[in-house]
Amino acid sequence: MALAVLKFGGTSVGDVDRIKNTANRIIDEKKQGNQVVVVVSAMGKTTDQLVALANEISSYPSKREMDMLLSTGEQVTIALLTMALTEKGYSAISFTGWQAGIETESNHCNARITNIEPEKIKRHLNDEKIVIIAGFQGVTEEGEITTLGRGGSDTTAVALAAALKANKCVIYTDVTGVFTSDPRYIPNARKLESISYDEMLELANLGAGVLHARAVEFAKNYQISLEVCSSLEKVSGTVIEEEVTVEKSLIVRGVAFEEDITRITIFELENGLQNLSSIFTTLAARNINVDIIIQNQTVGENTYLSFSIKNDDLRETIDILEHYQTTLGFKHFEYESGLAKVSIIGSGMISNPGVAAKMFEVLAQNNIQIKMVSTSEIKVSTVINQSQMLDAAKILHAEFELDLVEHNVN
Amino acid sequence: MALAVLKFGGTSVGDVDRIKNTANRIIDEKKQGNQVVVVVSAMGKTTDQLVALANEISSYPSKREMDMLLSTGEQVTIALLTMALTEKGYSAISFTGWQAGIETESNHCNARITNIEPEKIKRHLNDEKIVIIAGFQGVTEEGEITTLGRGGSDTTAVALAAALKANKCVIYTDVTGVFTSDPRYIPNARKLESISYDEMLELANLGAGVLHARAVEFAKNYQISLEVCSSLEKVSGTVIEEEVTVEKSLIVRGVAFEEDITRITIFELENGLQNLSSIFTTLAARNINVDIIIQNQTVGENTYLSFSIKNDDLRETIDILEHYQTTLGFKHFEYESGLAKVSIIGSGMISNPGVAAKMFEVLAQNNIQIKMVSTSEIKVSTVINQSQMLDAAKILHAEFELDLVEHNVN
Repeated sequence: MALAVLKFGGTSVGDVDRIKNTANRIIDEKKQGNQVVVVVSAMGKTTDQLVALANEISSYPSKREMDMLLSTGEQVTIALLTMALTEKGYSAISFTGWQAGIETESNHCNARITNIEPEKIKRHLNDEKIVIIAGFQGVTEEGEITTLGRGGSDTTAVALAAALKANKCVIYTDVTGVFTSDPRYIPNARKLESISYDEMLELANLGAGVLHARAVEFAKNYQISLEVCSSLEKVSGTVIEEEVTVEKSLIVRGVAFEEDITRITIFELENGLQNLSSIFTTLAARNINVDIIIQNQTVGENTYLSFSIKNDDLRETIDILEHYQTTLGFKHFEYESGLAKVSIIGSGMISNPGVAAKMFEVLAQNNIQIKMVSTSEIKVSTVINQSQMLDAAKILHAEFELDLVEHNVN
Repeated sequence: MALAVLKFGGTSVGDVDRIKNTANRIIDEKKQGNQVVVVVSAMGKTTDQLVALANEISSYPSKREMDMLLSTGEQVTIALLTMALTEKGYSAISFTGWQAGIETESNHCNARITNIEPEKIKRHLNDEKIVIIAGFQGVTEEGEITTLGRGGSDTTAVALAAALKANKCVIYTDVTGVFTSDPRYIPNARKLESISYDEMLELANLGAGVLHARAVEFAKNYQISLEVCSSLEKVSGTVIEEEVTVEKSLIVRGVAFEEDITRITIFELENGLQNLSSIFTTLAARNINVDIIIQNQTVGENTYLSFSIKNDDLRETIDILEHYQTTLGFKHFEYESGLAKVSIIGSGMISNPGVAAKMFEVLAQNNIQIKMVSTSEIKVSTVINQSQMLDAAKILHAEFELDLVEHNVN
């Protein structure tokens, strides 16, 4: 008998009617003769409401107590969804993270799953029950409740699929799959039939928002074939797996973009690499996420350095740089906001060195000035003016023929 | 160092401001140099809201899933209260029922505590932490979440006080203590300095609502001295303990009353006692709570039987009696609604047989007809017309001089 792990996000269980609809989707799967494990998130805005309550009490609530608080959200959903399945005549049982044997490290609010003891779940599956598990949460060796960080329910689903050796893992979400670009802004964006783990990882990290990056890493490590599809429309979604057979001739698989970027440039950095690491250690200690880094070592101490941050972190970054200017040893710094990042992603790039060159060329032809560049084996990112972001994305989408594929599944 | 267990109900933690006030009350206790364990309920109307959600999904939700659902309420409170204490500079830690080692039998929604493993709590108390425990909930040997039934947080507090050998157990509530009668209706009702377990048990069972009956039983069994007092006003409350030293000369300690009672009378019941038990077994199986029972066996099969129920159960009781009339073997039945129960309570009654007679006499003098009577060693209950309930209570309160005591602590 095949085993399916299905994951439903907060929108799919946002109110009583949606919970009932989700119960019907689960029953469809059960009727196909499969064993079914379901992972769910908290209802709609529950997590945000709980965070707001905590913030009314404390500006810096303890992370342990935040986990205690937030883990109630999924627990409410699993109980209600199980009731809905029982009401429709199906045998079901719910488990919290700790009951399901989902063990994590003790890093509150951002814990990683270390082990899953799947025996209890297997026993109930063999009893013909649909097993409903609270996503996003686990328990440490000491019996402390932890959460996996935002989007962690995806990771719970993939980890359970690995532990239970599931035949499939379907992530139901509010989009119909993974697209070549964001269809809200790029009208010709097309849904992909399949995409590789690495490509998906780059998309997830670039803020495409479809899947939690850690879930994709987990799926890659355990070679779990993931399907992302819509919880509302009954259309086929996108499969994420190692071997992309269809559309493999394509070099570029997607165009991603992200706004509200600021570039910081530090001039005349003394002592080169030594001070370089001090800067990023200092910024990291204050939770400032640095993205692209460009460092250009000239002769002796005359080094300059550029890096990109989110606009939201600009004020604090300026404070830190001014405060530590002497310690870090640099002459002065400048910043430029109003920037955006546009990236092309595709595992075929590795063997096609001309792709980056073509990207720069087509941007130049359209008078789009590139402020920063960063490349990996399957991605080229550029930082440009935000006002040109959507134009750049559309031009690149067309240039790499992402809208022109025979197997259009949408 | 003394150890105090404090319990705060839903009203005391009903919103963020009240949670902060409750944190101050806890800090007052800590400042006295005591170790402090706190038991809390769900915030305000949370439990009712969760029940309403469940009922939108299912008319008969599984009790296991109700426990899964409702136990989240207290978990939210313990996290927020702990944050509030930390914010005020006090070291605190929260535990759910299962984390606190509160073991119960597996009877979902109405489980009894079977054992408490207090080592974890003791360890954190010895670390100078205030320990905050979710009331109302526990865990079975199999790791299933259970709840203790309405008012169960009182029981959690008393059971913890017993397991930890606490020096005191204070139940903070929205009244200032236990009164000789309900002060909302009986203007001369007076707060008692102390009351015995048995008297409190009768009051709790009669719906006085101050304390959960099971908590009082637990306190009696383990000889835990309980104090009931107000979470809002700083006045002394009522102590519940074995030996009532002050006011011991009083025979009657309180007057309780309860409205919406219906009396059912069954005529010509065949086979006497055998069918009698069938009737109450059948009613109990449908969760109909029968209170006072009066049975009058005459010669042979000509038995009649009266019993009282809550008005709310009347429709179902009629259905059952009509459906099983042949099986149960009786000629016909009648019912009378619009009745109320008025009781006098006091452990001194045992040695004063004239108390009941005096009660009947004073009611008769005031033209209050008694429809049913039930007596125990420390209580006399009468069923009368509801329209005369408050008059009867006031007359009895005055007759037994409950408003005239030298040690008036109010």
